[in-house]
Formats: sequence, structure tokens, C-alpha cells
Amino acid sequence: MDARDRALFINSLSGFKSANLIGSQDSQGQTNLAMFSSVVHLGASPALVAFIMRPDNGKRHTLDNIKQTKHYTINQVSEAFYDKAHQTSASYSQNQSEFEECGLTTEFIETINAPFVAQSSLKYAVSLKQIIPIELNGTLMIIGQITHIICDQQAIQNDGFIDIELLNTVAVSSLDSYHKTTKISRLQYAKPDKPVQKVINITHEIKE
Amino acid sequence: MDARDRALFINSLSGFKSANLIGSQDSQGQTNLAMFSSVVHLGASPALVAFIMRPDNGKRHTLDNIKQTKHYTINQVSEAFYDKAHQTSASYSQNQSEFEECGLTTEFIETINAPFVAQSSLKYAVSLKQIIPIELNGTLMIIGQITHIICDQQAIQNDGFIDIELLNTVAVSSLDSYHKTTKISRLQYAKPDKPVQKVINITHEIKE
Repeated sequence: MDARDRALFINSLSGFKSANLIGSQDSQGQTNLAMFSSVVHLGASPALVAFIMRPDNGKRHTLDNIKQTKHYTINQVSEAFYDKAHQTSASYSQNQSEFEECGLTTEFIETINAPFVAQSSLKYAVSLKQIIPIELNGTLMIIGQITHIICDQQAIQNDGFIDIELLNTVAVSSLDSYHKTTKISRLQYAKPDKPVQKVINITHEIKE
Repeated sequence: MDARDRALFINSLSGFKSANLIGSQDSQGQTNLAMFSSVVHLGASPALVAFIMRPDNGKRHTLDNIKQTKHYTINQVSEAFYDKAHQTSASYSQNQSEFEECGLTTEFIETINAPFVAQSSLKYAVSLKQIIPIELNGTLMIIGQITHIICDQQAIQNDGFIDIELLNTVAVSSLDSYHKTTKISRLQYAKPDKPVQKVINITHEIKE
């Protein structure tokens, strides 16, 4: 297999992946936006999230910015702008902003030194906690703590579950395939002496 | 928010996740199977895959087995058995096998000291390379190299892409919600001077 085919093949193995845009800016306020399919939940308390990056590719600007400002945003990608999100993976130069080049809009909140994606319905600000080098292949694991969450309230259910399907969040497979979803069901917390049961009667009650 | 609600809420933030069963066994051949939604691609060459585990919960048996044998399997979960896969997250004792308790079937290949899930259409054997402790919250990142891949040939396209939707692989959101997918499209490798374009004419030609 050539390198591109091998990348498509091996990237298929892990299963469906998240599609997230990571927003950052340098100390002069030059914004940057990059697509990642490796964002992974690390823990709920404290609320920690990680992603994997190869420092040698076009995502170098994201890393430089995060090191400078210690802030970044993670923005779920939905069907309405998945193609613009994908286009951010092109190799733009450091003085070009992917927001402008790809037709996406910056959004800022006070105290956070990084741009959100206005088009995203579920996004959060993250404060850098640790960068772990993975020596086996020269990648980096970037770990941050979630500090602010912006989410359409209609998607938040009364048990804390956020209905990301309602927000039309997409899933990714391999390197370049985007998918919408259809819920099969939620399943109750599993116990050894009890058969699998579905979660029912969860309403979309608004949570303060 | 109470701890369970908070876990559902924070687990929703990372987006859609993979659903994988990790198979392992101890040095006496006692098999174990556990569900993970944190499997993440690390690199294609060498083919490295990672997952996150909390060593203090019911998945402790998986960790002990992997340390003993250095082998494990990762098995994509499909719609046909997602409920059985979910049930493996119940706290069975060390002398119970989740295969038997949850109605799943072991499958072995020579030289690999870990059980595959017969029901899975895309699965692979992994050799332990490194365990990285994440001190921020006491979790572990388990990194392994993929050594053997078992996949229905009909799903492998001629550019290396594996159509995991064709295999009915499910996606997970939050802690307990399972979803099937519908492909929106594959998008071509992005370049700064070119608009986004779809990948077309990829056939399901069988690759040797």
C-alpha cells in the first residue's frame, strides 16, 4: 500500500470519530482554526479533554498558539458546515486565518484568549494543562481543562445528557468521510444481575 | 449537578465516539471483554492505537491481563450486538467471562494471546507498547501496535478506505447513547487554492 492508502486504511480501524474545530490565536490576535478527529474525553471531574497532534504538519500553528496563550476552543462540527470545517485542513500560511479563508465566523467571550466558531451549537473554552510527548511516533497529546461551555439549551436533557444528534453534530470515519447519525437507543447503567434496558422518559426539559 | 449527571454532561462534549470491545485474557486463559469509547488513532506508520482507562473501575481486569500477556484485541461494535457490548460494562467478577455472561463468542488466531469477538466484522490484534500515566486525573493511556487485522473484504475500498458504515459499526455519544450512521460524503484532500470537492467513483473493488 502507498502511504495515502495506508493512512486511509489504518485510520478506519478505530471506528467513528468526533469532528471538532480547534480555535486559537497568537499573542498578536492572528486567529487560527484546525480540524481534529482525535478529541477524546479524559475525565468529568475535573473536566479534562485531550487531543492528539502531529507537530510536523499544517497544524503547527495551533500548537504554537496554544503554547503562547494557554487557551483554545473546541467546537463541534455539524452538517451545516462540515465542508467548510474540512477545508481548514488545507495548508494555509501563518498570516491567513482559516476562519476567513473557509467562510467561518469568529466569536469571542470575555476572558478567553481564543476564538470560538459562531456556527457551532456546542463549543467550549479549554485551558492548557499539559503536553505529553508520545515518543513512539513523535506525536503529542495536548490536555486541557474545560472552563466555559456554550450549548443550545434545547439539547440539554434533564439528566445532563446533551443530545448532540439534535444539534446535527457529524461523525468522521477514516480521514475524510462524514456521517450524520440516527439514534438507536440509550441504555441504562449495566449491572451483572440485570438484562440490558433502554433509557426512557428523558425529556428535553431545560436545565438552568 | 450530581456526579452521574455531570458525567453524562461532560462526556457529551467531545462529540461522537467509537464503540469498541477490548478482549484480553490472563495467563491462565480466563477471558475478559470490556467496552471502551476512547480508542483513538495515533499513527499509521507504525500503526499505533491508544485508549484511555481509569484503573479504579471494573476495567481493572483488562489492565491486569494486558500487563500479563502484552496482547489484546480491539473489536468494532455493530448494531447487531451493541446491547450485548454495553452489558460488558457491568461489574462481573474476575472468574466470570463477559463473553459468556453477555452472549458473545470468543474467536482465536494462532500466536495471539487474546480473544477476538466472533460477532465483530472489523477487529485487530494489538501488541502493548507503552502505558502512559496521566497524573492530572489518575487515568492511563494504553498504547499498542496493530499486528493483525480481520475485516470483511467487501468493506475495503480500492484506496484503502474501509466502509465501516457498511459494517453497521455504531457510534457512541455521552456514556450510553448508541447511533447508526448515514454517510454525507467523503471529501478530497484539502488544498488552499481549491474549493472543497467530494470523493467520487470509489468502488468496492476487492483488495488483496
